[in-house]
Amino acid sequence: MALNIRSFATPSATSPLGPLLVTRRDPRANDVVIDILYCGVCHSDLHQARNDWHNSIYPMVPGHEIIGRVTSVGASVSKFKEGDLVGVGCLVDSCQHCPSCAEGLEQYCEEGATVTYNGIDRHDGMPTFGGYSERIVVSDKFVVNVSEKIDPKAAAPLLCAGITTYSPLKHWKVGKGSKVAVIGLGGLGHMGLKFAKAMGADVTLFTRSPGKEAEARRLGADHVVLSTDQAQMDAVANQFDFILDTVPYSHDLNPYTATLKRDGTLVLVGLIGPVEPTLMTVPLVLGRRQVAGSCIGGIPETQEMMDFCAEHNIVSDIEMIDIQNINDAYERMLKSDVKYRFVIDMKSLQQSF
Amino acid sequence: MALNIRSFATPSATSPLGPLLVTRRDPRANDVVIDILYCGVCHSDLHQARNDWHNSIYPMVPGHEIIGRVTSVGASVSKFKEGDLVGVGCLVDSCQHCPSCAEGLEQYCEEGATVTYNGIDRHDGMPTFGGYSERIVVSDKFVVNVSEKIDPKAAAPLLCAGITTYSPLKHWKVGKGSKVAVIGLGGLGHMGLKFAKAMGADVTLFTRSPGKEAEARRLGADHVVLSTDQAQMDAVANQFDFILDTVPYSHDLNPYTATLKRDGTLVLVGLIGPVEPTLMTVPLVLGRRQVAGSCIGGIPETQEMMDFCAEHNIVSDIEMIDIQNINDAYERMLKSDVKYRFVIDMKSLQQSF
Ligand SMILES: [Zn+2]
Ligand SMILES: [Zn+2]
Ligand SMILES: [Zn+2]
Ligand SMILES: [Zn+2]
Repeated sequence: MALNIRSFATPSATSPLGPLLVTRRDPRANDVVIDILYCGVCHSDLHQARNDWHNSIYPMVPGHEIIGRVTSVGASVSKFKEGDLVGVGCLVDSCQHCPSCAEGLEQYCEEGATVTYNGIDRHDGMPTFGGYSERIVVSDKFVVNVSEKIDPKAAAPLLCAGITTYSPLKHWKVGKGSKVAVIGLGGLGHMGLKFAKAMGADVTLFTRSPGKEAEARRLGADHVVLSTDQAQMDAVANQFDFILDTVPYSHDLNPYTATLKRDGTLVLVGLIGPVEPTLMTVPLVLGRRQVAGSCIGGIPETQEMMDFCAEHNIVSDIEMIDIQNINDAYERMLKSDVKYRFVIDMKSLQQSF
Repeated sequence: MALNIRSFATPSATSPLGPLLVTRRDPRANDVVIDILYCGVCHSDLHQARNDWHNSIYPMVPGHEIIGRVTSVGASVSKFKEGDLVGVGCLVDSCQHCPSCAEGLEQYCEEGATVTYNGIDRHDGMPTFGGYSERIVVSDKFVVNVSEKIDPKAAAPLLCAGITTYSPLKHWKVGKGSKVAVIGLGGLGHMGLKFAKAMGADVTLFTRSPGKEAEARRLGADHVVLSTDQAQMDAVANQFDFILDTVPYSHDLNPYTATLKRDGTLVLVGLIGPVEPTLMTVPLVLGRRQVAGSCIGGIPETQEMMDFCAEHNIVSDIEMIDIQNINDAYERMLKSDVKYRFVIDMKSLQQSF
C-alpha cells in the first residue's frame, strides 16, 4: 500500500500544483491509515507552497485540515477502527517526552513537533505529505475522533482554523460574561466569533470594512466596531477582557490595546512577522495589559474542540472546490475572496489520474 | 500651617531647581500631616521637571519616594498618630469607587489617580507638590506604615522603585522555583534582583556591560548574562518564567522574548514609548509568550511590600545628597552614574531658607 498515493503537489515555489503519485510509509504498529474525504485550504498552504517562509521542501503536498475514514489500523492501535470518521490537523508527531508533550501541548514540543506536511518524519527521515491526497498514514496519538453528527465537509477547517481560535479562547478562560473582541473576519475570525459566542461571551467584531454587520451577527457577533472610525474606537476603550487578533499581515495594534480592560490580553494568531507600526508601551504599562501569541492547539484540546463543535453544532462556513481548482482558489484567497474557507472534495482527485 | 512650606521647585522646563515657598492645603478630616525626612530621586522627577512628557505644571515640586514622621492627623484618622514613621509614594488620591480602586489597584483608577506631584487635587483643584519639601499633607488611605526596623533613608526608594518591581513579581506569581531574569541594573533593576531573590526565585541579570558579575551577585543574582554575547544568549533560550524589563529607553525585546519559556511573560516597567526595533511575533506565537506592562502598585500592595522589606531586611542601595545638589544629581542620573538611587536628606533644605 505504500506506493503510488494519488496526490496534488507543487514541484517548486513557482509552479502551480498538479497531480503527483507519492510514497507514504508502510503503517507502523501505532499507525492509523485514513482515506481522505475532505481537506480544508489554509493560508499557510499557499505560503508554504510558494516558499514564503523560506523552509519549503519539494515536491510538497499541502493540506492540514483533514477529514477522512479509517481504513485500517496498526496492531497496537485500540482507539480507532475501520470506518471511524476522524480528523488530522497540523501535527502528526512530536517527541512525546518533553514537558509540553507531557501536558498535551504538542504544538510547543521542545524538540519541535512533526508537521503534517513540509516536515520530516522523526523516525524514518522521510518528508511528510499533507491532505491534498487520497490517503494518509498517521500515528494514532495525532488522530482525533469526529462525531457523525456534524457535516464532515464543514468540519475540515476545524483542524486548523478551528483549533487556532478555540485554544486561546480557552487558555485565557473566556466564558460566560467575558467581553471578547475578534479582529478580522476571515477563516480564523469567523471561527473566533462562533466559538466566543458559544462559550457565552459578549462578542464584538472589529473590522475595517463597513457593511459586515448582518454577516457578523449571523456568525455570533453581538456588536460590530468599524476600526477605521475613531469615534467607534473611542466608545470601546477599556472594554475587552480578551481580543483575538486573526489578521495575517502587519497592522497597528495600538488602537486595539487601548480597548482592553486592565489585565486584558490581545492574542495574535494570524500574524507571523514584525509588529508594525511599532507597539506603544503606554497602554500596556498603564493597564497591565498584555500582548501574546498562540499557536494552533494540542491534540487533547483538538479532541475537546471537536466534541465542543458536535455539542454546539459548530462548523466552518465553507466553499467546496475540486482539487483541480486549487490554483485558482489560492488566487482568490490572496484577495480574501472566500467565505470563509475552501474545502477540497477529495473524490475529485480521481479525475486527474 | 497651610502657607510657606519650604520646598525645592522648578519654575519652568529649562530652569534648574531652587528654593520656593509653596502652599499646601489645611488638613482635612482624613488627612495626615507628615514632616519629610528623606525623599528618593526618581528618573521621572527629571523627566517631569523638564517637561519631557509634555504634561508639566509649573512651578513643580518633584519627589514621590517620601519617608517622614507624622506630626498631626485629621479628626477621622485612626490608622496613624503623631510620631509614626510613614511613607508616601507616587499616588495621593484616587476616585475610591471604580473597580480598580475597589480592588486596591489605585494606580489603575479608571477616573485617573491623583499623582503626588504634577497632579491636580480632585477635591480643591489645586496642584499637587511632591517630596522635595519639608512637609506634605496626604489622605490617610495613601500613607503606608514604615517599620522602625529598616533604615528610613534607604527605604525611601521603595515607594517607587521598590513597588514598581515588587508588584509585577507578585502579580505574575514569582516564588520558590521560579526562573526570573531582570534586564538592566539601575534603580529599578537592583530592586528587582533583591525582591526576586527574596521571593525564592533563581535570578539572572541581563546586562550589556561586562564586569557587573560581583555587584549583581551581591544584589541577589545567581547568574549574569551578557546580552551582547550571542553565545550567552543562546545558552538561556527557553529558560525564564518571567522577565522584568527595567530599561527606560527603546531597546530590542526580541533577544529576550526568545529566552522565555512557553507561557512566560516579559513585563516592561521602565519603557514609556515605542518598542523599537519592532517586536517579532514568532517567539510569541510559537511559545504562547507574552509581553506586558506594569505600573507601580496599589496602596495595599505597597504596604505589603514595606512589610516584606522589614521582614527580609531589604532596602535600596542609596547615595545621600543635600537638596542643593539636586541639579547635579539629575545630570549624573542621565549618565546612570548612581548606585542605585539618590536620596535627599531633607534637613538640608533649611540651608536654603
Ligand atoms: Zn493552517
Ligand atoms: Zn515534545
Ligand atoms: Zn518614580
Ligand atoms: Zn478609581
